[in-house]
Amino acid sequence: MHHLTKLREAIGGPRAAAAADAQRHLGSLTKPPGSLGRLEELAVRLAALTGRAPAVTAPVIFTFAADHGVVAEAVSAYPPSVTAQMVENFLRGGAAVSVLARQAGARVVVADFGVATPLGAPAGLVVRRVGAGTANMVAGPAMTRAQAVEAVEAGAALAEEAIAAGADLLGTGEMGIGNTTAASAITASITGAPVEAVTGRGTGLDETGRRRKVAVVARALRVNAPDAGDGLDVLAKLGGFEIAGLVGVILAGAAHRVPVALDGFIAGAAALVAVTLAPDARHALFASHLAAEPGHALALRHLGLDPYLALDMRLGEGTGAALFVPLARAAAAIYAEMATFKSAGVDGPV
Amino acid sequence: MHHLTKLREAIGGPRAAAAADAQRHLGSLTKPPGSLGRLEELAVRLAALTGRAPAVTAPVIFTFAADHGVVAEAVSAYPPSVTAQMVENFLRGGAAVSVLARQAGARVVVADFGVATPLGAPAGLVVRRVGAGTANMVAGPAMTRAQAVEAVEAGAALAEEAIAAGADLLGTGEMGIGNTTAASAITASITGAPVEAVTGRGTGLDETGRRRKVAVVARALRVNAPDAGDGLDVLAKLGGFEIAGLVGVILAGAAHRVPVALDGFIAGAAALVAVTLAPDARHALFASHLAAEPGHALALRHLGLDPYLALDMRLGEGTGAALFVPLARAAAAIYAEMATFKSAGVDGPV
Repeated sequence: MHHLTKLREAIGGPRAAAAADAQRHLGSLTKPPGSLGRLEELAVRLAALTGRAPAVTAPVIFTFAADHGVVAEAVSAYPPSVTAQMVENFLRGGAAVSVLARQAGARVVVADFGVATPLGAPAGLVVRRVGAGTANMVAGPAMTRAQAVEAVEAGAALAEEAIAAGADLLGTGEMGIGNTTAASAITASITGAPVEAVTGRGTGLDETGRRRKVAVVARALRVNAPDAGDGLDVLAKLGGFEIAGLVGVILAGAAHRVPVALDGFIAGAAALVAVTLAPDARHALFASHLAAEPGHALALRHLGLDPYLALDMRLGEGTGAALFVPLARAAAAIYAEMATFKSAGVDGPV
Repeated sequence: MHHLTKLREAIGGPRAAAAADAQRHLGSLTKPPGSLGRLEELAVRLAALTGRAPAVTAPVIFTFAADHGVVAEAVSAYPPSVTAQMVENFLRGGAAVSVLARQAGARVVVADFGVATPLGAPAGLVVRRVGAGTANMVAGPAMTRAQAVEAVEAGAALAEEAIAAGADLLGTGEMGIGNTTAASAITASITGAPVEAVTGRGTGLDETGRRRKVAVVARALRVNAPDAGDGLDVLAKLGGFEIAGLVGVILAGAAHRVPVALDGFIAGAAALVAVTLAPDARHALFASHLAAEPGHALALRHLGLDPYLALDMRLGEGTGAALFVPLARAAAAIYAEMATFKSAGVDGPV
């Protein structure tokens, strides 16, 4: 557990002096103070995290895939074969996250953290398999604690590789048929919200299916009795390998003071685990959007994060993180490129 | 009034068959149906307007500037000299809209529709002056009906020039110290909302200043008694030359079936006038964001438009329209570049 311990210890709070400098600089620009609203808040948060002027030149989105034993309980509208098929679609550039990342000038790291259907070795796939999908969490833990640590550290190592190569914004993405069920269980466990409130229709269940999913999540919580104060326990008992990988990305971003754009509900569950392991990690987190899954708002409230977009999306893959990239670039450009009242010779308030 | 009449007559409703085709195409792409939420709705609306696959290759933002006689009533935190100074800032590329448009790959057309302070002839400035600022609307009409028509037609002509040169997304922007007062008066008149509800702090009034502004707007409405059903009457009595120019941009976009990204509160007032003149113009309108000015939500409700972003901005200039460009490009890219279930060999729902 050496790597994980080091990451947790390296995570610190925001830099108040850098935040104050950034606020002062934004106040000197040719616009009424605060009139760019959340774009200014975003610039200040980026400065407070990194300790320097906000910049987004090399965004990288991590789209991790894995399967979930809980699909045996009929909790998804789609068959598990789709996880592997979508990985191939990511690699060919035909999936939504491929298109949106290309549009945003972001690189996508597609990694197999435990897809059940054999994938061969398609070009461009990063293989960090922890198993051939998790065990069914209604019958016991989804994975062992050692597997959880292995997946977290593998995700962190991928993020650290990207950071070493210059990545200055990390995005979280995922694919895994059944993973909204895992995310619902994690969210209920860590936030304490009722299962009913955090369990939605996922990719397309009807109301009967959703009620079945609620019962499955409740059963998984009862059978496993996770310790909500122990992120690794929650993760091992209710998680997925791809979710664990994203916990690693978040911890690595926070430890290296590189901002992490969270995607939707699944990413929110990973963030809940990460913040349980290292509370200050939340200062590195940016909630790209508010997803349509009902548990997402509750997760963000628990994390103390306010989403930047609300487009009623519920796809995952990293699509929301990709849409956040132009906003972060806009905040950085405002900071770097606008004239000041003084330089432009513009009069201030009377 | 020939040009304006022609524009009004050319404006029609959305194309239902194109919308249905677009909806069908989006349903065939490798994602659960509707899971990209408002990005899909945006793609469908673009297709319904233009009759073809959504595309955003040459966005143009129109930032029109003019002064307002009503500033004599101390309704702004900034002196009117700032209008001219900000025009120079736009032309030098140091203003917020300059930075955000550059970031978004959009061209900005900066036009003087009636700035009071002499500007000389700075390079890049389009001159369409209708007067040296409007008259003070608390003492009578802000402009004559003939001036209103002249400004609308001048704005429309600039939009038509851009469309002829390939513009496929128009954005509205403005600068004019005092113009939130004009926009509040227009919004109260056309929506019927109480003056108190549509009058905010503009660029930075305190509560005393805001109460003074409420009284000024109420007086302008009483003195001028505009006919809320006659867009030109409302515009002439309460408007600004830059607002009239934006009415022209909106009508030209609608007439030529080119989408128009509305910016904030001032643009919303221009849209209210445009839709009074040609109700079907609303199908060409996309509310880029919800501004912090309290009247904006009421204007958008009256227009039947749902904003895409809500970033608590209150700057104007076209900044919200610029931030909308990457979203529109994302919607177009999803439509054009994603694989279908069939082409990617991905299984559908079980």
